[in-house]
Amino acid sequence: MSNSELISPHGSPELKILLLEGKEREEELKRAEGMPKVVMTTRETGDLIMLGIGGFTPLDGFMNEADWKGVCKDMKMANGIFWPIPITLSHDEKVDPGTEICLVSGETEEIMGTMMVQECYQIDKDFECLNVYGTTEDDHPGVKMVKAQKDWNLAGPVKVVSESYFPKDFGELYMRPAESRKIFAEKGWKKVAALQLRNPMHRSHEYLAKIAVEVSDGLFIHQLVGKLKPGDIPADTRVQCINTLVELYFDKNRVVTGGYPLDMRYAGPREGLLHAVFRQNFGCTHMIIGRDHAGVGDYYGPFDAQNIFNELWDGALECRPLPIDWTFYCYKCEGMASMKTCPHGKEDRLFLSGTALRKALSEGGEVPAEFSRPEVLKILREYYGGLKDDEKVEVKMHGHASGDAEKKIKK
Amino acid sequence: MSNSELISPHGSPELKILLLEGKEREEELKRAEGMPKVVMTTRETGDLIMLGIGGFTPLDGFMNEADWKGVCKDMKMANGIFWPIPITLSHDEKVDPGTEICLVSGETEEIMGTMMVQECYQIDKDFECLNVYGTTEDDHPGVKMVKAQKDWNLAGPVKVVSESYFPKDFGELYMRPAESRKIFAEKGWKKVAALQLRNPMHRSHEYLAKIAVEVSDGLFIHQLVGKLKPGDIPADTRVQCINTLVELYFDKNRVVTGGYPLDMRYAGPREGLLHAVFRQNFGCTHMIIGRDHAGVGDYYGPFDAQNIFNELWDGALECRPLPIDWTFYCYKCEGMASMKTCPHGKEDRLFLSGTALRKALSEGGEVPAEFSRPEVLKILREYYGGLKDDEKVEVKMHGHASGDAEKKIKK
Repeated sequence: MSNSELISPHGSPELKILLLEGKEREEELKRAEGMPKVVMTTRETGDLIMLGIGGFTPLDGFMNEADWKGVCKDMKMANGIFWPIPITLSHDEKVDPGTEICLVSGETEEIMGTMMVQECYQIDKDFECLNVYGTTEDDHPGVKMVKAQKDWNLAGPVKVVSESYFPKDFGELYMRPAESRKIFAEKGWKKVAALQLRNPMHRSHEYLAKIAVEVSDGLFIHQLVGKLKPGDIPADTRVQCINTLVELYFDKNRVVTGGYPLDMRYAGPREGLLHAVFRQNFGCTHMIIGRDHAGVGDYYGPFDAQNIFNELWDGALECRPLPIDWTFYCYKCEGMASMKTCPHGKEDRLFLSGTALRKALSEGGEVPAEFSRPEVLKILREYYGGLKDDEKVEVKMHGHASGDAEKKIKK
Repeated sequence: MSNSELISPHGSPELKILLLEGKEREEELKRAEGMPKVVMTTRETGDLIMLGIGGFTPLDGFMNEADWKGVCKDMKMANGIFWPIPITLSHDEKVDPGTEICLVSGETEEIMGTMMVQECYQIDKDFECLNVYGTTEDDHPGVKMVKAQKDWNLAGPVKVVSESYFPKDFGELYMRPAESRKIFAEKGWKKVAALQLRNPMHRSHEYLAKIAVEVSDGLFIHQLVGKLKPGDIPADTRVQCINTLVELYFDKNRVVTGGYPLDMRYAGPREGLLHAVFRQNFGCTHMIIGRDHAGVGDYYGPFDAQNIFNELWDGALECRPLPIDWTFYCYKCEGMASMKTCPHGKEDRLFLSGTALRKALSEGGEVPAEFSRPEVLKILREYYGGLKDDEKVEVKMHGHASGDAEKKIKK
């Protein structure tokens, strides 16, 4: 698991893997059936799976009050280790410390794991929201999730018995940290950059990615396969777009693609840091941070998620940011560029609003090849063509939603 | 001079500036007139000026035998500090230690400085050539320079009284390390990448440079304004090409251009290291190393100058390489790319041999805009148009020679 050439996991020399296998798993599953059940949201389920596969090394379970508070306030757990976003489990009833509980997915109703409850505490949700999301507004999808949490937070070490439908639904794309580390080690990569994706890759993302390839040993295209907000392209379509792009426009020796099971929190800068933390666990030395990384609406400044890396204390986080400016095609540069490299005017640059893109894709309008590769656009056109008219306007949350890829450009 | 935010000079907390000014300079010049004269080649003169302005920090003069030997063999001076290429002065007569000598430019006949001779020694030129250039063949222009050295090497600390014609001929482009450091500090740059240039910038160089801009605070385009081998574009034409390109295709807030007075040695990997050493003195944290950096003919593997950085001992050199693969325009990528980012075939990529480029430029033939910016090509056409027919075939060395910009592409 550990490899001296690769970056160490966060805060630990080895991955902390809490997922049981074989006989041990069978036995825990049997034991779990006799325990009181706690139903988890998709966010909590995703967090539990990450705990299981070592993606959240060095955590050994859901956070207690001291960790929760330290993380909210100073991004520091009680043991002094850096962590940017609370990883917590909520429940509507008080549970006595010492109780073993069975963790059940609310989405699939399957048993996901067990927890030895060590602490049961109540939180100031506004405190968490203000510190982590910078706002207490309900319009913020991350804030909304926190406010929807139940009254009590349960803390304690977990044992994980399932990765739910992710391995089956996403096949090879679903990747555990030990697997990505093995691949990077076999390829002899040391400097590995991670690209966070939750939307199809257009040429602006391809450019980000290729800058990273130019200056690294390899690129890890790491897609979120958990839940998104309404308006994002569903994972299956997005995966198809990205696979096609990688197949046709990347040197496959320089790229590894993987998926991870978290829900988006849209916490902007704090989530950018979380992205770097777990990418380090996956074996990456660098985290690409573009414009408005993990942001939503106008809650964060476009480069807040880059700047926050400079505010950490020495040694807080080994994985380094690879900050890239706002990217676009420029007709005078005759190529992709960013605000840092292009000296030309707005009128020379190609920008396309999310609305304009969706309209063009669903109505068969023209989208310039300088904006997106024709092969990617073809997949998106097919997806939009298959949507019913009312889905085109507003699509309900269910991991399957209509496209809002370039909303940020409009801002 | 020193700035806590910028990288320290090589092997020293401060720049070691050996250039005298004002009254001190006047007095040294007067003293020098009474000393025995030693005439320097242009290479030695360029080295002396670099010593003067602190570009060769921490050296305080031309190297003695122990340093020369350590540098040739292990890239290490007697004091343990890393240095990749001997900086030596040769003379046809033995000089007694304790003698003060007057250093005269063989090119301009002016007094450049003085040296207190501390050692006079003879070298095994084949040993130097084999270790530093990897060959003893006379066809290698660097080897040729070593073999043309006189019988005795003179070593000792120097005082420098002139920068020759460089400040006057190159105006603002000629830049001392203290000046570039001041500019970087004023701009708030910390991560500064240096681009070594001895040829006009075509789009492949622009692409290297822009990758560096994307991942750094700023770029230092640092041109050699000393002597080149026959067949290279003369400095004045090249400067015009580069200024035009920067003016039209770069964000001027992200780029500083400067010139330095050394002759090319064409030592490939060893010279790549020297480039990084003195760029660190100019305040750069990263040295862009492309394909066949500082190479000539087929003497070096295309990426030897990148790989040699991995062979140094820990702490040898603070300035890091920014290695970039072979770059070109790809018609399928529809943009600039490198061997690392482009998956397509040779037939999709634009390559142009030096011969084909020269022919097109002197005979008015077509050069694709994907190879070079039209505004740059215009300057080169004017230059070639002004050459006499015999100059187009083979041009004599005199710092002014015909173009061989893309010779490397042919290899």
